[in-house]
Amino acid sequence: MKVYADIKSGNCYKVALICSLLEISHQWVHVDILKAETQATSFLAKNSNGKIPLLETENGQYLAESNAILNYLADDTALLPTDPMQRALVLQWQFFEQYSHEPFIAVARFINLYLGLPESRAQEYQDLQVGGHKALRVMEDQLSQSDYLVGSSITIADISLYAYTHVAFEGGFNLSSYPGILSWLSRIRQLPGYKSMDDFNLNKENG
Amino acid sequence: MKVYADIKSGNCYKVALICSLLEISHQWVHVDILKAETQATSFLAKNSNGKIPLLETENGQYLAESNAILNYLADDTALLPTDPMQRALVLQWQFFEQYSHEPFIAVARFINLYLGLPESRAQEYQDLQVGGHKALRVMEDQLSQSDYLVGSSITIADISLYAYTHVAFEGGFNLSSYPGILSWLSRIRQLPGYKSMDDFNLNKENG
Repeated sequence: MKVYADIKSGNCYKVALICSLLEISHQWVHVDILKAETQATSFLAKNSNGKIPLLETENGQYLAESNAILNYLADDTALLPTDPMQRALVLQWQFFEQYSHEPFIAVARFINLYLGLPESRAQEYQDLQVGGHKALRVMEDQLSQSDYLVGSSITIADISLYAYTHVAFEGGFNLSSYPGILSWLSRIRQLPGYKSMDDFNLNKENG
Repeated sequence: MKVYADIKSGNCYKVALICSLLEISHQWVHVDILKAETQATSFLAKNSNGKIPLLETENGQYLAESNAILNYLADDTALLPTDPMQRALVLQWQFFEQYSHEPFIAVARFINLYLGLPESRAQEYQDLQVGGHKALRVMEDQLSQSDYLVGSSITIADISLYAYTHVAFEGGFNLSSYPGILSWLSRIRQLPGYKSMDDFNLNKENG
């Protein structure tokens, strides 16, 4: 199994993290986002949407979209419940992540960390803070009531939301007013096999 | 089962359509988006993210996010494959819909149809055309090769993408250069139980 990805992206980090937690062996193929390698003809032949992460199975099938990849890799494991409503709630949080969380927190992080917060994007950056804090408040509502987003044990919903939340400070988000989120982040960091984005970055970029 | 929704929204239409195709009996509770009824305290108590559609099951559980609701309602039906890779590909298209399709095509439609394309949003509207056509091109790549997005029969991936694609013209998108999409739209319109957004609108708003 190959994973085309760039560990600087939280969406790619989700796949690295589940592979570490479940000890899934794979070949990590580095695709540099900042050099626009996802727009190269050779990559577009693999995924016409031009995005990473992208999974390639042993028999040459491609699967895109980080959260779809998580569902595929978690199938028949404890990270994905079998009860239909629990499973649907996992998806609810993953769709929330892609629509109401990532477009604010990941984009603010990109503008700040990779573009150096240029004046031309300062207003957009401020607007993203509002949407990001709204998403964090929705997470806090749940995490003040349960240890994980769906019930009392970790699922791939947590992996999805953890990805950009654990580096939200790089997008200017202060989490100190979200005690439920802070406890949850700490709970995830203690899982066997856990690695942060920086842990992977050191291994993969230099490896 | 209750569905809190507004048929003017393509995301809500997805739920109306699957209920019609699968003959799922339900109570439709109209929540007016344009009057911001999703931001009322009584609604936020049901879904702290303040969005519709929202499902309420017989035993009082809430499920948000249109695509999560589709997965829940399609479980154990022909609209959702059981093979893990096929199922993951359905999710791939649904996440594509929420990240790469809806934010362009649905937002352009909203600006044009409901706001009357004001001058202050003309530039944004033009920018949305670019992203929308990129998404339509990705769909066309697949639909020029297969009758439906995942294989040879309809799945909930098709319902998800159909919702805003069948009204894309209301956002200024001309589909005449996408023959694969046009054939696919026609194929879906012929399904037993099919109703367009307008069909529901007449029934629900006046009913």
